[in-house]
Amino acid sequence: MKLYDQFIERTRKIGMLRAIGGTLGWDMKTQMPPKGAEARGEQMALLSGLIHEMATCPELGDALKKLSEADGLNPDQAANVREMSRMYDRAAKLPKSLIEEKTRARAEGQTIWKDARPKNDFAAFAPCLKRNVKLQRETAELLGYDDNPYDALLDAYEPNATNASTNAMFDPIRKEAKPLLDAILGSSVRPDESLLTRPLSPRKQRRFGILAAKEIGFDFEAGRLDVSAHPFCSGSHPNDVRMTTRYDVNYPLSSFFAVLHEAGHGLYGQGLLTEHIYTPRGRSVSLGVHESQSRFWENSVGRSRPFWKRYLPKLKKAYGGAFDDVSLDDFYFAVNRATPGLIRVEADEITYNFHILLRFELENEMINGRIEVDDLPSAWNAKMRGYLGIDPPNDAMGVMQDIHWAFGGIGYFPTYTLGNLYAAQLLWKIRQDIPDLDDEIERGNFAGILEWLRERIHRQGMLYSSAELIKRATGEPPNGSYFVHYLREKYGSLYRLSLS
Amino acid sequence: MKLYDQFIERTRKIGMLRAIGGTLGWDMKTQMPPKGAEARGEQMALLSGLIHEMATCPELGDALKKLSEADGLNPDQAANVREMSRMYDRAAKLPKSLIEEKTRARAEGQTIWKDARPKNDFAAFAPCLKRNVKLQRETAELLGYDDNPYDALLDAYEPNATNASTNAMFDPIRKEAKPLLDAILGSSVRPDESLLTRPLSPRKQRRFGILAAKEIGFDFEAGRLDVSAHPFCSGSHPNDVRMTTRYDVNYPLSSFFAVLHEAGHGLYGQGLLTEHIYTPRGRSVSLGVHESQSRFWENSVGRSRPFWKRYLPKLKKAYGGAFDDVSLDDFYFAVNRATPGLIRVEADEITYNFHILLRFELENEMINGRIEVDDLPSAWNAKMRGYLGIDPPNDAMGVMQDIHWAFGGIGYFPTYTLGNLYAAQLLWKIRQDIPDLDDEIERGNFAGILEWLRERIHRQGMLYSSAELIKRATGEPPNGSYFVHYLREKYGSLYRLSLS
Repeated sequence: MKLYDQFIERTRKIGMLRAIGGTLGWDMKTQMPPKGAEARGEQMALLSGLIHEMATCPELGDALKKLSEADGLNPDQAANVREMSRMYDRAAKLPKSLIEEKTRARAEGQTIWKDARPKNDFAAFAPCLKRNVKLQRETAELLGYDDNPYDALLDAYEPNATNASTNAMFDPIRKEAKPLLDAILGSSVRPDESLLTRPLSPRKQRRFGILAAKEIGFDFEAGRLDVSAHPFCSGSHPNDVRMTTRYDVNYPLSSFFAVLHEAGHGLYGQGLLTEHIYTPRGRSVSLGVHESQSRFWENSVGRSRPFWKRYLPKLKKAYGGAFDDVSLDDFYFAVNRATPGLIRVEADEITYNFHILLRFELENEMINGRIEVDDLPSAWNAKMRGYLGIDPPNDAMGVMQDIHWAFGGIGYFPTYTLGNLYAAQLLWKIRQDIPDLDDEIERGNFAGILEWLRERIHRQGMLYSSAELIKRATGEPPNGSYFVHYLREKYGSLYRLSLS
Repeated sequence: MKLYDQFIERTRKIGMLRAIGGTLGWDMKTQMPPKGAEARGEQMALLSGLIHEMATCPELGDALKKLSEADGLNPDQAANVREMSRMYDRAAKLPKSLIEEKTRARAEGQTIWKDARPKNDFAAFAPCLKRNVKLQRETAELLGYDDNPYDALLDAYEPNATNASTNAMFDPIRKEAKPLLDAILGSSVRPDESLLTRPLSPRKQRRFGILAAKEIGFDFEAGRLDVSAHPFCSGSHPNDVRMTTRYDVNYPLSSFFAVLHEAGHGLYGQGLLTEHIYTPRGRSVSLGVHESQSRFWENSVGRSRPFWKRYLPKLKKAYGGAFDDVSLDDFYFAVNRATPGLIRVEADEITYNFHILLRFELENEMINGRIEVDDLPSAWNAKMRGYLGIDPPNDAMGVMQDIHWAFGGIGYFPTYTLGNLYAAQLLWKIRQDIPDLDDEIERGNFAGILEWLRERIHRQGMLYSSAELIKRATGEPPNGSYFVHYLREKYGSLYRLSLS
């Protein structure tokens, strides 16, 4: 089938240019000298422009039209045609000038944010954010939507998700996790959090993180671990997946959980099918599913009791004596403390989701023009009080704490909590399929778990939508109840709650 | 002038894609995980294909034709049109099939060389070299030439240079540097080379190298220093210039001079005009002139007595006592030892050029069909005996030591010695313009020297040909006598020779 071959060659070229952009993006955040930012922004804008040109060229449109109506495509081919059509339709609606302007705004926004945040200078940051909101509103209008302009933005990160569907997924959190958090705060039991702040050198932290990342299956011959201001994972190919963390001498577990988290993303990246690389069939399906993989390894596995039964002795060894007095129960409780805090990325498994609800709701209001950027700090602080009962002392630790809005990533935040929900649903099914799961974890036998995820998630690429993928993997459409159930079980036991 | 603006936009895009390729190449050699090689090769081939497509498109050809005949271009614009025409004409003469065949031969040649060299297996390498010679002969025929097919190849690296002009430049080396070397070998005076092999940790080597690179003016806010198997410098923009070195604990000066050398390249890269970046006007003029900048800082400055009057105390500090017994005179002599050796990249300021003469002469004979590849090892060894009086014990340390012929880079080697000749001519003129040059170096006042080079070399980009550039900078057409004079003065004094 010659038409399909030509189409897939074009698709692969686009994917390859995206991969190149991925490497440049990684470089920008980990290696690039500071003065290089402006030039890099321009280079990446050119690359985006070229990708946009290729992804919207009439020849591709014609091929997609013919292939969409063609018989005899196998499921892999059909998925590629379906997903490229979706992307083509989205891209065709956005003029090149807007794409380039967004790419520039993305680079410049990040640079200004990096400068303004430590100075706690929201006034310096506000113009970027206004520009990004304006550009994203324009984008939503051009893309079109049924109910809510926000749907058009969300769709870029979590295809087919809408504000309404996401709200429905998040409902159990509002209804059940909030009372759970209140019960925890009312409990007289408290973990000894001082266990988490015993200093460990960055070198030892790095070694301990790599040890665990290797054991769960991350291939360091096909990947790296570097340092960046914010941990992330990016990949240009299953054989080249790069994750980052950051080291705080006084809070060693922070870097460790970041490594587990990014390694979860990395395992997804390394598990994509090389034979389908640079095409949708060989690409991760959504940010939500991506986050389910990171959260699965960070929390479902990495904050479980059997995991620390294995790793606490190793951590004690890394500490060289300074941790020998710590019991497994105390440590397990400490790494699962639930405490409302200011910073999303430091939040625990429960409160994290309220940080997301807050952002999700504010994004909606910004995109729908119900709130102005200048009023954002006070709206933020009000929601922090409402959900978590705390008052941010400044904007650096409040509304400016995340980079996402700086790069225009509106619609991105909800995928984090979607990831938590998916991860809990996957864990529930894995427990059925691997009955001795806890023993496997305790023995460091992660291969069976990884193979389960490889087969049901990683190798599926974009064969199905994320909702369909989760349904096929677990037998149930995605919903938030598994997560709330998981939280109630775990925290009910830790904080000795009598839950109704 | 709309036509020029469209032309320059096209030119900038091509230049920007080249810059992106540069960053990917740097990453490949310094950061990429091993399994990523194949995917990266494919990504870079796509990028090269795109660049070739854009650089040979008929629209560019039409614009160049019209602009070449247009009146009213300013000198910057005229230089851009002239240089892009040169590149366009070269590219247009080579069929795509030949380019692709050369790209394959380039990749395969390097792979086979990497395997054959450590095994000392010239028979395994010979077919690649034959293929490369054949492809380069074809290339020369297609490009055309007046006197010698080699001219067409040399032109790719040193525009407008010919075999005849290069031979004339090299003549003083044959006539005067050879007797100088013989006199040195006959001298009873010898430096204490053991000073060069006192161990120093890579961390301290790095710190010492960065100290000097900063002082001569390399801007680490717009550049980096990393580690790679072979030192190199690459830049994607004046604000993002990346150099590498390698650290041998037992030979600390090796990494130090590599840093000075690469910083010399880097200063050229950082000194190009940002306003003309991605166009010929903002690009380095030739490999020879580039090498003149690296050699100037490595040798003319970095191996001078006043330089070490400043840096020896700093080196002693880095050694923390283990170097305190060393006198300036002994050290200065040691870093300027002249000793015939097998390996080009380890050679001193004199013998280096005989390594180049040898390769230059053999390349000429191969391209003109006067010598067969199978006879190359014996021809190599005969020339080594003739120029340096030594017999290579094997082909790994002889004819197979460099990667250049493996990737088909025939015509590249002479630019290294051209760089030495240009550097000496620049030094001669700088001494006239900055009479207290030695004092400036000793005091670490490199700003005046750098500004001299910035103004006369870096900022000129490709405004003039390399020969014209050197003539404008020094008042004399380039010639080899300055270099020979420099060698005679320096080595005559060091080895206490009475030279006629």
